[in-house]
Amino acid sequence: MKPFSPLNILYAQAGGVTPVINTTLAAVIETCQRHFGHIGALYGARNGILGVLHEDLVALTHTDTATLNQLKHLPGGALQACRFDLDTEADNPQQYERIYQVFKAHQIHAFLYNGGNGSMLTAQKVADYCARRGHPIQVIGIPKTIDNDLAHTHCSPGYGSAAKFFATSLLEAALDLRAMYPTSTKVFIMEAMGRHTGWIALSGTLITENLPDVPLQILFPERPFDYDALLRRVKQDLSRHDHCVIVVAEGLRTADGELFAVARPNSLHRDWSQLGGAGIKLADELRRDLDTKVHVAVPDYLQRSAAHMVSLTDWEMAYDVGRAAVEAVLAGRTGVLPVIHKVAEDPFEWHTPYVDISTVANAERPVPPSFIREDGYGATQAAIDYLRPLIAGERPVFWHHGLPDLRPVQFPAVDKRCPPWRHTP
Amino acid sequence: MKPFSPLNILYAQAGGVTPVINTTLAAVIETCQRHFGHIGALYGARNGILGVLHEDLVALTHTDTATLNQLKHLPGGALQACRFDLDTEADNPQQYERIYQVFKAHQIHAFLYNGGNGSMLTAQKVADYCARRGHPIQVIGIPKTIDNDLAHTHCSPGYGSAAKFFATSLLEAALDLRAMYPTSTKVFIMEAMGRHTGWIALSGTLITENLPDVPLQILFPERPFDYDALLRRVKQDLSRHDHCVIVVAEGLRTADGELFAVARPNSLHRDWSQLGGAGIKLADELRRDLDTKVHVAVPDYLQRSAAHMVSLTDWEMAYDVGRAAVEAVLAGRTGVLPVIHKVAEDPFEWHTPYVDISTVANAERPVPPSFIREDGYGATQAAIDYLRPLIAGERPVFWHHGLPDLRPVQFPAVDKRCPPWRHTP
Repeated sequence: MKPFSPLNILYAQAGGVTPVINTTLAAVIETCQRHFGHIGALYGARNGILGVLHEDLVALTHTDTATLNQLKHLPGGALQACRFDLDTEADNPQQYERIYQVFKAHQIHAFLYNGGNGSMLTAQKVADYCARRGHPIQVIGIPKTIDNDLAHTHCSPGYGSAAKFFATSLLEAALDLRAMYPTSTKVFIMEAMGRHTGWIALSGTLITENLPDVPLQILFPERPFDYDALLRRVKQDLSRHDHCVIVVAEGLRTADGELFAVARPNSLHRDWSQLGGAGIKLADELRRDLDTKVHVAVPDYLQRSAAHMVSLTDWEMAYDVGRAAVEAVLAGRTGVLPVIHKVAEDPFEWHTPYVDISTVANAERPVPPSFIREDGYGATQAAIDYLRPLIAGERPVFWHHGLPDLRPVQFPAVDKRCPPWRHTP
Repeated sequence: MKPFSPLNILYAQAGGVTPVINTTLAAVIETCQRHFGHIGALYGARNGILGVLHEDLVALTHTDTATLNQLKHLPGGALQACRFDLDTEADNPQQYERIYQVFKAHQIHAFLYNGGNGSMLTAQKVADYCARRGHPIQVIGIPKTIDNDLAHTHCSPGYGSAAKFFATSLLEAALDLRAMYPTSTKVFIMEAMGRHTGWIALSGTLITENLPDVPLQILFPERPFDYDALLRRVKQDLSRHDHCVIVVAEGLRTADGELFAVARPNSLHRDWSQLGGAGIKLADELRRDLDTKVHVAVPDYLQRSAAHMVSLTDWEMAYDVGRAAVEAVLAGRTGVLPVIHKVAEDPFEWHTPYVDISTVANAERPVPPSFIREDGYGATQAAIDYLRPLIAGERPVFWHHGLPDLRPVQFPAVDKRCPPWRHTP
């Protein structure tokens, strides 16, 4: 604690957004407000680390209650969230020097980076550089990702809501299919986000509680995809049940490592291939081989922005990690992020201990073998037991004229103190 | 009224289902129960007119309150809904004779057919045949379709909920896009159902109330699609706003009448081509021509089965047409269907007068020119004024273990009294 020199904090959002990342932002603001005196100014950088490079900062300290409530219900990233990784210091020392200068100009003592495993690496790099340059800032990570692929946490804020939306939608669509299959669609496919892991696809298993006899095949990227084996299973489902529901993760790969999805390289970002297409491709192949009507849903952003169906548990977790991040600053910590640690099963309870950023950065947690049924096409009871508390409860929705009352939030810009940033990007 | 000879009624569901068609079924059951004495037995045919041909009937008369409440919240079609049209009587007189025999065997006085414009034609054919054969039954249509393309009604039960889901999801995804566009996705496309009409696509315009500055292009099948013109508009949006939201109806056609969607003929049903793919195709072309990241959502069945987000107005309308259909039977009417007639603007009120089935059968109502902006890429204020009351209000959702409490309903089978139906289908 440094009671006589108030701490200035800079917060930013990075990577794919979630329906609850702005709740984390609201928690950061409220916690800072509660510690006014110890904490001086809270700034936000727009567009993640890019906002630091461009000195594109906003003032968050005095955010009012109405705006905070708005944030707690707003999907997307209110500060905008970059997909951008820093170069190595050897390749681009100017980037690091610039960040250092911006931190110094605004007397930033702590940097909070709210993102996934890639963003944690960025946070680590920044902390290392600043320490060496003699401006040791506290760097605290804050976890978020619908992908649930962060290591060393029970789950990632954002995942519970995405899973709730995905399972609910699948249940509803499966009931639709039940009405149609005798004369129309016999196969319904739903594509889940998940470039390398099948966490969202896994949530599809939850519909079996409502539909114990549903013929359901889940395709996990954790298992090599064998189209012929799937085709045999679907044929069996059709002969027994006359219909079949399939969940496919977008990042499915065949045994030789080839993406089953249509990969679309994006020339703007050399390290990023846009996925999507596994469901479409699978539907086309099954139509050809089964000579039947196949429907496919690709919810895409809908599954990570469904503010109208946020899990109450997930919402609370997103708040808790924001609060814990500020508390870590106050406790003088650095190089850590708060994670979710389960402490009780029933009722489900968690706390938010800290782990080293370095153990999380760029690590990726797949769906564990104990959650995937031995045949590879479904989930175990252990998976259901894991999932159920994460989707529990419903955050209230405020409706206005028939739509959720969601409006973008504006924050006041902070005057620039540095020359413009002229380097790439 | 025939107080001394109780009427037996047969009800069936046909065509693509909606999130509220089972509410109509619940209304039919409850209204029959209220008129017990005048009405004798209420039967359901499973799978539409096919259930009549196969004498696959269930008993609905004594459905209990718990089941009725379940039905009022259940998406899909609880009795299963066929996509099947009768042959002409000249081509297949056995079909008609069979239906006649099943009606006679169960002493059916009235046949209620809950469907879209194609189903109304089926109902009409059945009525005509039975009248000529000397078993004059009352035939009452009941409107339903998320497509909203039925003529002579203010709107179709099912549409308000589909529009509410579509607009809500688009709003949420547009907020997601706002967070991502500086470094990632710049174009988000969402594909709406609508084989020939743009009614669901139209609902996308509702997001402009929350996002007045959103760069939004809506592509209506009512207008010939000109890819180059759209590309120019998207480029303009990107230069001004750095992002763009596009809504595309699946049934988009170019000026020469070609489907822009990928048409997939389904050999099982010679008169049906499965659409879907307009969004995927558009995304691929825009990626090529803009060299930018494009995301596309294809909600497919999600938009017509979203029981977790049913419009209260739509729910009430779905109930009203079910009740009105039974009341038409009691009033001795035939060859009609109840429709929605707006009687007051604010507060929004409607009643359910009857129109002749023949005026609705196989007619198709496109989005009127007054609802489409002059440039063809957006909606008018008149459209917004039309849409808003239809999506108003939220039906309560019963959650259980984090998911909506939706479970299929079972009805007792009715003993068969006819020989098996051996003819096609």
